[in-house]
Amino acid sequence: MERQTMVVLDMEGVLVPEIWIAVAERTGIEALRRTTRDEPDYDALMAHRLRLLAEHGLTMSLIAEVIKGLEPLPGAAEFLTELRSHRPVILLSDTFEQFASALAPKLGRPVILCHRLEIDEASDRITGYRLRMPDQKRAAVEAFRQLGYRVLAAGDSYNDTSMLLSADAGYLFHAPPNVVADFPQLGSFDEFDELLPRLLA
Amino acid sequence: MERQTMVVLDMEGVLVPEIWIAVAERTGIEALRRTTRDEPDYDALMAHRLRLLAEHGLTMSLIAEVIKGLEPLPGAAEFLTELRSHRPVILLSDTFEQFASALAPKLGRPVILCHRLEIDEASDRITGYRLRMPDQKRAAVEAFRQLGYRVLAAGDSYNDTSMLLSADAGYLFHAPPNVVADFPQLGSFDEFDELLPRLLA
Repeated sequence: MERQTMVVLDMEGVLVPEIWIAVAERTGIEALRRTTRDEPDYDALMAHRLRLLAEHGLTMSLIAEVIKGLEPLPGAAEFLTELRSHRPVILLSDTFEQFASALAPKLGRPVILCHRLEIDEASDRITGYRLRMPDQKRAAVEAFRQLGYRVLAAGDSYNDTSMLLSADAGYLFHAPPNVVADFPQLGSFDEFDELLPRLLA
Repeated sequence: MERQTMVVLDMEGVLVPEIWIAVAERTGIEALRRTTRDEPDYDALMAHRLRLLAEHGLTMSLIAEVIKGLEPLPGAAEFLTELRSHRPVILLSDTFEQFASALAPKLGRPVILCHRLEIDEASDRITGYRLRMPDQKRAAVEAFRQLGYRVLAAGDSYNDTSMLLSADAGYLFHAPPNVVADFPQLGSFDEFDELLPRLLA
């Protein structure tokens, strides 16, 4: 009898738009467009973002408002609902609880394992962030395998590749050309109709 | 800053009726009423159930039909929706994928980690079962703690107590008097309104 199977998915870029790009568009701060697709060093990327937020005086409330205006990518909600009717699905995201909670209802409240921002309530400013643990996506895949599951995974960025490579099967999805070129061993897809059968296999 | 928090819950007896009791009621086979609340040895319990199914010629289709007729316990769906709007929630159940999939839509498709039955498709009979791993509930709690989460847990039966005791805080819920008496160190509640604030603490 085949092993029981779980699916883990990245969220931003795969199911919803990149949050920081949406903030860049809303605020006109072009330098906020930089994402994990461009910058493999996550701490460097976050330091860059927090510096820009401080420089421009952007509040947590403004960012929350931008996130509330985001919608899942076309077809994403249907894809996720179909997948969840067959298998346990867990989203592994390097976003933050404060951002994820605004998006979760639009995706049918999936489980999202992520990090947490430090917010100064009085000034309504993001003062820092705390990664729950280093390389959490890979660690989660390894934990689920230890729990007896075959794990299938999909993601779009550099911060997904250790997860994709440690899964029983991992796929790039909506990945930019530089990520696809750097990981030729991973299958790469751009349409939910192509990805779904791989995750149900 | 406090640790990020997850919640793990047992399913049968906590959120939905005991499936095997429903099968007992539907079929009139009183001996199927025995559950993990009565019998701490899960393998002995399952051997007893499969023997009864075979003796009475009960098919997988009949059991699936009984399960499709079950509804969440009063208030359970609302409780779970509220809890999931605040925290990642994972159901840890010693039921089987073939049973859980019939109940999941009525609970908003939560993640359910469980086991799998062996079905002989030709005869439509349950021929056996495979536990994904021994003591899966405790192993999952330990895995989530290793992933950096504070874990809160609730369950009703003997097969929940290792999960409850390994969590950062564990609560008995809807537990029968014998379980409550055997685990006086665990808080015990019977109403969702009492349990919810503990799981949001």
